[in-house]
Amino acid sequence: MNSFTSAEPVYLRLAAVLEGMIHNRTFSPGDRMPSVRDFSRQQRVSVPTALKAYVMLETRGLINARPKSGFFVRPRQADLLREPSDVTAAPKITEISATDPLDSVLSDHGNKKLVPLGAAIPNYSLLPAEKLARTMGAIARKLGSESIGYDMAPGSEMVRREIARRSLSWGCSLKAEDFIITIGGTEALALALRATSKPGDTVAIESPTYYGLVHMLRELSLNVLPVPMDGVNGIDVNALERAVKRTKVSACVLIPNFNNPTGALMPDENKQRVVEFLAKRNVPIIEDDIYGDLQHDGMRPHCLKKFDRDGNVLLCSSFSKSLAPGYRVGYIAPGRFYKRVMLLKKASTLANSSLPTLAVGEFLRDGGYDRYLRGLRATYKDQVARMREAIAETFPEGIGLSRPTGGFVLWVELPKKTDSIELFRQARAAGISIAPGPLFSAEGGFRNFIRLNCGEPWDARIERAIGILGHLVERLSNR
Amino acid sequence: MNSFTSAEPVYLRLAAVLEGMIHNRTFSPGDRMPSVRDFSRQQRVSVPTALKAYVMLETRGLINARPKSGFFVRPRQADLLREPSDVTAAPKITEISATDPLDSVLSDHGNKKLVPLGAAIPNYSLLPAEKLARTMGAIARKLGSESIGYDMAPGSEMVRREIARRSLSWGCSLKAEDFIITIGGTEALALALRATSKPGDTVAIESPTYYGLVHMLRELSLNVLPVPMDGVNGIDVNALERAVKRTKVSACVLIPNFNNPTGALMPDENKQRVVEFLAKRNVPIIEDDIYGDLQHDGMRPHCLKKFDRDGNVLLCSSFSKSLAPGYRVGYIAPGRFYKRVMLLKKASTLANSSLPTLAVGEFLRDGGYDRYLRGLRATYKDQVARMREAIAETFPEGIGLSRPTGGFVLWVELPKKTDSIELFRQARAAGISIAPGPLFSAEGGFRNFIRLNCGEPWDARIERAIGILGHLVERLSNR
Repeated sequence: MNSFTSAEPVYLRLAAVLEGMIHNRTFSPGDRMPSVRDFSRQQRVSVPTALKAYVMLETRGLINARPKSGFFVRPRQADLLREPSDVTAAPKITEISATDPLDSVLSDHGNKKLVPLGAAIPNYSLLPAEKLARTMGAIARKLGSESIGYDMAPGSEMVRREIARRSLSWGCSLKAEDFIITIGGTEALALALRATSKPGDTVAIESPTYYGLVHMLRELSLNVLPVPMDGVNGIDVNALERAVKRTKVSACVLIPNFNNPTGALMPDENKQRVVEFLAKRNVPIIEDDIYGDLQHDGMRPHCLKKFDRDGNVLLCSSFSKSLAPGYRVGYIAPGRFYKRVMLLKKASTLANSSLPTLAVGEFLRDGGYDRYLRGLRATYKDQVARMREAIAETFPEGIGLSRPTGGFVLWVELPKKTDSIELFRQARAAGISIAPGPLFSAEGGFRNFIRLNCGEPWDARIERAIGILGHLVERLSNR
Repeated sequence: MNSFTSAEPVYLRLAAVLEGMIHNRTFSPGDRMPSVRDFSRQQRVSVPTALKAYVMLETRGLINARPKSGFFVRPRQADLLREPSDVTAAPKITEISATDPLDSVLSDHGNKKLVPLGAAIPNYSLLPAEKLARTMGAIARKLGSESIGYDMAPGSEMVRREIARRSLSWGCSLKAEDFIITIGGTEALALALRATSKPGDTVAIESPTYYGLVHMLRELSLNVLPVPMDGVNGIDVNALERAVKRTKVSACVLIPNFNNPTGALMPDENKQRVVEFLAKRNVPIIEDDIYGDLQHDGMRPHCLKKFDRDGNVLLCSSFSKSLAPGYRVGYIAPGRFYKRVMLLKKASTLANSSLPTLAVGEFLRDGGYDRYLRGLRATYKDQVARMREAIAETFPEGIGLSRPTGGFVLWVELPKKTDSIELFRQARAAGISIAPGPLFSAEGGFRNFIRLNCGEPWDARIERAIGILGHLVERLSNR
């Protein structure tokens, strides 16, 4: 950074440092610069030397002095021009890198220029943002100075008890002490994997599976044993049993309820059989139940955890799909791995953000969650149904289309020859974000599949996007 | 959990499940039970069967029905009695387990019955809780439904730019793109270690060092190369150079500014020498600067990062010691390890809690932070000075006592024979939490040392606690 060996005068070096920070917009036009006095102290130079650097920047038109209020960054001439409209309108195309599948699809979600059919994120207007924020404010006022205090792992007892009460609807009867609050479902899964498996171990997963999981397994240097599944009943239990008998696995990760991406729902008898089989072989099950609360009709499906008699199931979930993605409130009930997961949680993040966690707990406690969920389920059901219809109307014949009974994603099998990575690129250039199939596979499979997010309220923009996608698929499948 | 093979009537099994959840207080006295209808659906039984279970619980006096509002848990007779006063007054003593040094000291901090001299946590009343909460509320109102949205890694550009601006006072000129926001300093350190080192590698650390780091190294299966330091100038640079020449290390973790626990401050020439030496040997430096903003007088010390020319320094810090521990806002500037740290962040927690992060950014932006820091530094300085005086007056002769020029902890060397673990136990029984020396060592060293937290405003309670500690030390050192 700063050079001590250089022979150039100190003020030149200081001016260059500030110029760099103005150029890269660490200090942007209109910003107040540090006072000359502060800057001289920070840089361990005299006030006249610091002032010389400032005067030099002023001479060069980068900053100007305002009487009694200091130096400010000047607007640059170039900033006063508007950008040509087609530059701002065209989304920047970046490659999906082989090492980071999350990058493009996740970061595209924040890009207002793209129709967000890629990441599985609900439209924020469907979620109770105002109510949660008000609740958080009320809690902060009640707690006073304690509101900036730690909520050390395992996290607020109130919140854990509220989650424990909900476990009745999962077919369980868990208690507050069974849970650890985590930074969303992501941390829950990561802790579960680290508690059960070490680098070089092999983990059985569904194929296809959640792309965040694929990414996580790679970062943890874990090998993957993909087990086929079908879009209705989930993992092929016979195939799983054969695979586990043949290959030593350290854990098995399952998304039994409204699987991501297929939407499959494992029947209770399959759940029980898998739990009992893997318990007998001492293979821990990591259950991702993040969509479990989002059935479209009827009863909330039960968890694998229901059939767990010896703490072999590590149940992971969060409120990111149903309440507040950005609050980062998830949980894990790690069974016999409780102690190990606690140690890892403390060595990874120590505590959750207190106020957002308490606000979610309060939302669960005041009874509003169930009423609210009923509305959300109906909305997701409707959005999924409309997208299914639109796809059926506009996509070429012969495609396959999932028929999920919960959650808000669709898994689409395109004609054999269609390259979904190429489709992803062309769709992105046309202003539409989608998730190509290979992201959901550790081996780059599902080349002719895509996943579509139905978390957005149905409107003409999405209708058009599906029309364009249909057209692109048609063209690509005939090449 | 639920049994499918049992021959007992279903309602008996259901009643037993609910009774268990009432007994363990998942449902507490006064709580409303799930409606009979909801419960029958959750359990996949008929309404009459569910009702039979409820009636049975009612007959046994566990719940009672209120017309038109459902069943409620009855207060138990035992709950109406007060606890004998000496039971509530006596803090529960638990052992510090060898595998989890964090447990006792950290969880004791929340225990109002103990004088909190153990964990290094400021008294929350010193921190701007109300202002931050109000700021968070204002941001939530402004963002509307976007307020529950993700702030995906690397985190808000505004917040990263505000931190980048502050880097001038560290002797650096970093830009927003150099930073990733993390879940407190804990996640920053954990990501830095995981990005540079793999299980089985050896990491050079200061001895003594922060106990959270000792815990983290153990959980990551990393070996430790402890390098001696002194309480004034920090790590012994000659010893570090010799050690690194002799032993292959994957990284070196340093707390150069107001070291925890010793309070040492590395002189700039030592900083430069260490950075240049380790860069030449390609050993990454993980710099923990969490106390850097808290000098008692004069200028903010510079960071190792200032001397970093090739991205070899991973700078880690947070606002947990200066603004809001429970908001969990930290950051890392990982230099040449940026890409790897980003991948690990996404695979560990994906995003930070948005609103607390933005509130901290706003606090930095509006210029209040510097003014506020001036007051906080004076407070910490005063509290440290008072505790030093009290120790000098009440502890036996011949002890050593650190003289920190920043931060808010004291490191005390007791007479050789004093066992600080035993002192910890006796102090705890007397209502005082302290941090015994062996927590700060990977090999259980520093048996006759303790660290004291000066984050609490000085008052008679602390004065008394120091008196009692002095007495206990006296007694233990004469055994």
